[in-house]
Amino acid sequence: MSQPKTWSDRFESALHPAIARFNASIGFDIELIEYDLTGSIAHAKMLGHTGIIELQEVKQLIEGLEQIRREFRAGQFNPGVDAEDVHFAVERRLTELVGDAGKKLHTARSRNDQVGTDIRLYLRDKIEEIRGQLRQFQTVLLDLAHEHIETPIPGYTHLQRAQPLSLAHHLLAYFHMAQRDWERLGEIYARTNCSPLGSGALAGTTFPIDRHYSAEELGFSSIYANSLDGVSDRDFAIEFLCAASLIMVHLSRLSEETILWASKEFSFISLKDSCATGSSIMPQKKNPDVPELVRGKTGRVFGHLQALLVLMKGLPLAYNKDLQEDKEAIFDGVKTVRACVEAMTILLGEGIEFRCDRLNSAVNEDFSNATDVADYLAAKGVPFREAYNLVGKVVKTSLAAGKLLKDLTLEEWQQIHPAFEEDIYRAIAPQQVIAARNSYGGTGFDRVRQALEEAKALLQ
Amino acid sequence: MSQPKTWSDRFESALHPAIARFNASIGFDIELIEYDLTGSIAHAKMLGHTGIIELQEVKQLIEGLEQIRREFRAGQFNPGVDAEDVHFAVERRLTELVGDAGKKLHTARSRNDQVGTDIRLYLRDKIEEIRGQLRQFQTVLLDLAHEHIETPIPGYTHLQRAQPLSLAHHLLAYFHMAQRDWERLGEIYARTNCSPLGSGALAGTTFPIDRHYSAEELGFSSIYANSLDGVSDRDFAIEFLCAASLIMVHLSRLSEETILWASKEFSFISLKDSCATGSSIMPQKKNPDVPELVRGKTGRVFGHLQALLVLMKGLPLAYNKDLQEDKEAIFDGVKTVRACVEAMTILLGEGIEFRCDRLNSAVNEDFSNATDVADYLAAKGVPFREAYNLVGKVVKTSLAAGKLLKDLTLEEWQQIHPAFEEDIYRAIAPQQVIAARNSYGGTGFDRVRQALEEAKALLQ
Amino acid sequence: MSQPKTWSDRFESALHPAIARFNASIGFDIELIEYDLTGSIAHAKMLGHTGIIELQEVKQLIEGLEQIRREFRAGQFNPGVDAEDVHFAVERRLTELVGDAGKKLHTARSRNDQVGTDIRLYLRDKIEEIRGQLRQFQTVLLDLAHEHIETPIPGYTHLQRAQPLSLAHHLLAYFHMAQRDWERLGEIYARTNCSPLGSGALAGTTFPIDRHYSAEELGFSSIYANSLDGVSDRDFAIEFLCAASLIMVHLSRLSEETILWASKEFSFISLKDSCATGSSIMPQKKNPDVPELVRGKTGRVFGHLQALLVLMKGLPLAYNKDLQEDKEAIFDGVKTVRACVEAMTILLGEGIEFRCDRLNSAVNEDFSNATDVADYLAAKGVPFREAYNLVGKVVKTSLAAGKLLKDLTLEEWQQIHPAFEEDIYRAIAPQQVIAARNSYGGTGFDRVRQALEEAKALLQ
Amino acid sequence: MSQPKTWSDRFESALHPAIARFNASIGFDIELIEYDLTGSIAHAKMLGHTGIIELQEVKQLIEGLEQIRREFRAGQFNPGVDAEDVHFAVERRLTELVGDAGKKLHTARSRNDQVGTDIRLYLRDKIEEIRGQLRQFQTVLLDLAHEHIETPIPGYTHLQRAQPLSLAHHLLAYFHMAQRDWERLGEIYARTNCSPLGSGALAGTTFPIDRHYSAEELGFSSIYANSLDGVSDRDFAIEFLCAASLIMVHLSRLSEETILWASKEFSFISLKDSCATGSSIMPQKKNPDVPELVRGKTGRVFGHLQALLVLMKGLPLAYNKDLQEDKEAIFDGVKTVRACVEAMTILLGEGIEFRCDRLNSAVNEDFSNATDVADYLAAKGVPFREAYNLVGKVVKTSLAAGKLLKDLTLEEWQQIHPAFEEDIYRAIAPQQVIAARNSYGGTGFDRVRQALEEAKALLQ
Repeated sequence: MSQPKTWSDRFESALHPAIARFNASIGFDIELIEYDLTGSIAHAKMLGHTGIIELQEVKQLIEGLEQIRREFRAGQFNPGVDAEDVHFAVERRLTELVGDAGKKLHTARSRNDQVGTDIRLYLRDKIEEIRGQLRQFQTVLLDLAHEHIETPIPGYTHLQRAQPLSLAHHLLAYFHMAQRDWERLGEIYARTNCSPLGSGALAGTTFPIDRHYSAEELGFSSIYANSLDGVSDRDFAIEFLCAASLIMVHLSRLSEETILWASKEFSFISLKDSCATGSSIMPQKKNPDVPELVRGKTGRVFGHLQALLVLMKGLPLAYNKDLQEDKEAIFDGVKTVRACVEAMTILLGEGIEFRCDRLNSAVNEDFSNATDVADYLAAKGVPFREAYNLVGKVVKTSLAAGKLLKDLTLEEWQQIHPAFEEDIYRAIAPQQVIAARNSYGGTGFDRVRQALEEAKALLQ
Repeated sequence: MSQPKTWSDRFESALHPAIARFNASIGFDIELIEYDLTGSIAHAKMLGHTGIIELQEVKQLIEGLEQIRREFRAGQFNPGVDAEDVHFAVERRLTELVGDAGKKLHTARSRNDQVGTDIRLYLRDKIEEIRGQLRQFQTVLLDLAHEHIETPIPGYTHLQRAQPLSLAHHLLAYFHMAQRDWERLGEIYARTNCSPLGSGALAGTTFPIDRHYSAEELGFSSIYANSLDGVSDRDFAIEFLCAASLIMVHLSRLSEETILWASKEFSFISLKDSCATGSSIMPQKKNPDVPELVRGKTGRVFGHLQALLVLMKGLPLAYNKDLQEDKEAIFDGVKTVRACVEAMTILLGEGIEFRCDRLNSAVNEDFSNATDVADYLAAKGVPFREAYNLVGKVVKTSLAAGKLLKDLTLEEWQQIHPAFEEDIYRAIAPQQVIAARNSYGGTGFDRVRQALEEAKALLQ
Repeated sequence: MSQPKTWSDRFESALHPAIARFNASIGFDIELIEYDLTGSIAHAKMLGHTGIIELQEVKQLIEGLEQIRREFRAGQFNPGVDAEDVHFAVERRLTELVGDAGKKLHTARSRNDQVGTDIRLYLRDKIEEIRGQLRQFQTVLLDLAHEHIETPIPGYTHLQRAQPLSLAHHLLAYFHMAQRDWERLGEIYARTNCSPLGSGALAGTTFPIDRHYSAEELGFSSIYANSLDGVSDRDFAIEFLCAASLIMVHLSRLSEETILWASKEFSFISLKDSCATGSSIMPQKKNPDVPELVRGKTGRVFGHLQALLVLMKGLPLAYNKDLQEDKEAIFDGVKTVRACVEAMTILLGEGIEFRCDRLNSAVNEDFSNATDVADYLAAKGVPFREAYNLVGKVVKTSLAAGKLLKDLTLEEWQQIHPAFEEDIYRAIAPQQVIAARNSYGGTGFDRVRQALEEAKALLQ
Repeated sequence: MSQPKTWSDRFESALHPAIARFNASIGFDIELIEYDLTGSIAHAKMLGHTGIIELQEVKQLIEGLEQIRREFRAGQFNPGVDAEDVHFAVERRLTELVGDAGKKLHTARSRNDQVGTDIRLYLRDKIEEIRGQLRQFQTVLLDLAHEHIETPIPGYTHLQRAQPLSLAHHLLAYFHMAQRDWERLGEIYARTNCSPLGSGALAGTTFPIDRHYSAEELGFSSIYANSLDGVSDRDFAIEFLCAASLIMVHLSRLSEETILWASKEFSFISLKDSCATGSSIMPQKKNPDVPELVRGKTGRVFGHLQALLVLMKGLPLAYNKDLQEDKEAIFDGVKTVRACVEAMTILLGEGIEFRCDRLNSAVNEDFSNATDVADYLAAKGVPFREAYNLVGKVVKTSLAAGKLLKDLTLEEWQQIHPAFEEDIYRAIAPQQVIAARNSYGGTGFDRVRQALEEAKALLQ
């Protein structure tokens, strides 16, 4: 079996078979084939447009490339390890299909700018898909929030009850994280959407190419101004994986909360059968596998980010084979984020139900209205720090007495401080505690209604 | 010694001293003090503006806070571990200085939104400083490039000689990496420059605050729309550390090249004494410590990025003490990047000298003009892939014969392919090989001159 | 101010001041000074022992080095940036103190093997200290376990109630994690305790040194067999940071549980004032800062591990300046792990109290005895998978009816399956559910008593 | 299409199809099938041995499981997503094959201890395979070293020529790194080879199982002493990935050197066609793809390590679904390390040739004998630091004069210092410079011969 003839006659003997397997990327870069074909068509058109090859040859090339696309879609294009990579696989098949014209396709192009073009076309698409998914996720959050404006939920800091919240307000926090994710991906899209095509191996080319023409054909909005940079830049991939990591950070936080809420102890939600799983041995179990798995996949994306940073560290210019390793990290990063956003969207949309009874009783059983007592006094002129200390003491005595603040008599309040009046009871009722936080961005019901409108506007 | 009275009278006994040390952040968050004072002044003004406290009290607060600033600058403000953190340290000193008014400063504010404000004010400043440094780095690159438009340098892929380049072109690749760094930091600046002040502990506040007023006082360009998000978002810190990591990727690549160039084998540069160091034992040594150290510090910044990602993973809303750990990573990330950009700017600006003699002879001693022979044939109608194979064979025979391409006679060329003519010699002369790559973004001298002008324009 | 004369007269001009600051490690490697002095004393003795220098000179060197130690301990040895690093700072001061003999100390030694010796001496010590701390942590766990052999606690998988446990059994899980940490550090100690001294700059030395002598003086148990490896190996540092990361993984898991247990919803523990903190604004708050901070510091240690891995990636042999960056990662890794183990030991030892009332009632309110029903049937010959399905159905109907399993009548049981008899009630009582799991490693009370004895034996 | 019946009748409705896909691990955990079958056979035997099921049933179970093994090996066992995971897929098929006995296999076992058993059996095997590969790699290094004991190679620190070396000595540095890798994996093997089987879901089991029996059947050398730890420990996986990362660190360093050596500038090796690749556009290129790819894959393994650390961070006891994510990281870590060790072994064994002519001339053209001059003086009583400074000055003047040290006349030497005599020339001849470093671990030829013998002994 002879070695695939992928490079020049400078080489005499064939690759060691184990090395051929080691080097080959066809096992995974076949994922890029449609982008490779599209990129090659644009390159061919440019070669014709600039007179570097004949228009008749361009026609042949396009027909051949589209034929390969059809074969691929029909499952009939399955190059083996001997093809090394998707680019050679395509070129070889193309030459079979169209003869000499096929041998001209690579004029004024190198695999270095070619693969750079392919991966950007791919990622550009995937970024848009993820942005679309984020929009669906945000929509589900908004829908849930709409239902639960007046549903209370304990608010936590340090996982200790802090102040009660509108559940809608809590959900909107995730809406805004997703909004940043969406915006950030938009910026990265712009930096990704830059054409390296025509950078050649590293130095540009001697042919009178027109890089703007091919970039426009491919919908790129800018082109690399420096050919060395064009073939060796992977910033966009790292930026994408950082943005993907942040999406996972946000989803992992929501997952953690969902897992807590589904626990016996919290019981803030019930899980529907369609989004929960059981145990192989404990018949009573109903497990929140989805958020657990999302939380678990978080490190995977962080790992890919780290892998690419390490990959690039200290690489001299320009292209190095190391760069071949960018692809699987990007592909799996894309796949993981897509799967997780989708799963969480389904989970929130149809897999959980908030147990409003539990939420209502929860906000009535603790001291999370203590700040409001301090605020009450401060509003009456007691310096905040003094009011705060006073209330701390009340909490301590009440705890010891097994009482909540609402259980104190007016006399008891007035013994604490003469400024207390009958209206203290209203001030510390959970619904009022929530309603009163009407500062911009706060959890007050009116404010949340307004926030919902503003959030909806962001989705337009 | 009694416990510092930092929280309410709910607490009876003091912190365990080892735990007090463990919890205290004053050892490092003192770095934020100026931002904390500035933030408190804006908060005080807002409290006055909205009538929550008296204007007279505002005046006292501002005077007190400015007094603390003066004390700090004079080295007279040195809170110990008992102060827990910079915020309490300031509030305590303030109350000493201005009495009851001091106890009112924390009205309608929590440490959670306070520290979020401080860290954003800090990072905002540092991002601008780093962007300024990047501009200096880019200027040094442009200056060097100007000197070396016609200086040739071997271009590499796989660290094998590929095609000769204009040294200016090579340097401009780094200019463009830095340009992306600069742009990216600009976008992150915008997302960082968003005010969480007024988010309270997590839920907003019952006081009639004006978040837009304090945000404007502090120069924030937007405010968090959701209080939970406002106190628990650290996306900006992670984004910054990702951008910082990319700066380090770029600097590490340039460092690697500088180290290679300074080696005996390459000898493309000489290191000046002012930027090199010796050995404790080998008297002849002159080491490129600066780029080595920059390369070595790369992992440190990647590590901080990972640390913060791990920190945030799976944290339930809203604030958790874990977040205290964001600071040292940010501080050291800022410090490291600043030091590295500065050191590389000095190194390029005054620490190295390109050895033009060596560079000139280097590009004359290899086969990096082989592509041009293939291009020559392709331009005459030989399908590129055929031309490429033909030239591969020539290289093989020449290597065996100990010849370079320029050493072949015209007869020999014509035996290879009849299309060769006398002008092949001109086509493969290194200067011409470089000059001919005049495609946009290519290394052709004319193109590089133009690229320099465009680069200069980016700096305006 | 002229440049410190740290290297040979090959150099003419001084370092750029910013570069001097950038290069200097004295700001942090002063941490190594005691180890550096100890290492130098051993080296001096070896030089005397082998006749390379005079014994009289050895005496002077030792006196000088011990004098520097005294000065350091008295706070009188404070070298500035101009000293570059701790090694030069010591050598310089030594030469001031003892004259010419000082200039002989560096015979047959390089900073490369010197710093490698120092860092191993340091880490060796710190590993032993951490192992000692782990023993204390394990002791506290055992003490707590002893108190709580018969205290039940719900056991979870997927944070869903699974099967009730002996609290002692739960605590012992952490004992065994710490046991692995302790063992692992022991293995790393052995690999760390290997002497590079005498490797010279990279190649060994021309002097007739005796590496075994100096290694023995320093308590090393082996010596590097290859000098290049000796000066450039940092495996031990990476291994240590991996072991440190695993310690943090374990502590972060315990932290997460402690935080959950301290929540209102779980209420399995109460936090004592000595190990909890309050809020600046919410007077009722009592926060589990210690475990939160431990959890938060986890990423920091992971980050250092990654930093060192990145540092080493792709470094050619032998020593490179990049290696200077190993120190701060190691130092902070050591410091962080020590602080966290200490804090968690204090927290468990005196900062929390298990609320046995709550734990007892918790295990009586759920379906975590369902497996025992399936086991009951399986023990009577019903294939396990069938029994499991049957019980699943019972749980479903009971949930719908608002009943627990213990509420079913014997008739109801027998309708489900005729094999049920009166003893089913005993089989599903929580104490019995726990007691029955007497398989080796299981939670059965008798088994746990035995496990405690075995654990105790491991500490001997 | 109804949902696969994998859990109890507690569940009414089927999983959402997208969630089923998201949860399913069958796509990758099929890799474990042989280990799962082996583990199940041991479990079945234990159930029979302890009388929990009939021996006749054991026989049926074993036959059924072996039948599945045959089907799998014949490519006839291809469970789909509906099987969820390999464990259910096997149990389902088993029940089809052997009926009721199949439903008894899961008695006294949970997927949690089952999967823990499988992954340890898998990793145990893979560790041994990698250790075997490391032995081959070490053997190739020894063979190469044997050939090149007297071949000189410049030794570098800071990539600057430092002192010349025996090439064998240089290669042996990698031998010793691999030796540590081999030892470390041995320790991890021991900790991996610990049986969790019988831990049940988390708490042990009510059945009278014999964990030692099944552990012995499976060749485990110890068993987990705590069931919670048994089902939730993944330390061994993280330890393995740390050891794998260190292997990659070592290979990446050798890769970097190989890439440098293959460059035109170094030209220390030539690459054979069987282990090099070409360019798609530059016909002269011959690229060191193998070491580049190995270097590039380094970050991938670091990324997996980070992913697993992040995975485990903050997980409460005991099993959580997050743990499912451990597998792909382990599998790919194993695959990557195996491929890289294999590729580097082939590369060194048959893919490169050292160019002894170049190496010989290289060590004659620099100042890397300068330390020997200082040593020469120090041996004659000049304090080392003075000798060092003196030689630094000589280097400076020689460089300026375009001379090497060997070009100085005896008069010139004696003007520098009267201690110089005729034997200085011998002392600074490269072969002698190497030969003279005969300290233990040094590069002296005699020492290296001895080191080779010692290294050979380590392989026995």
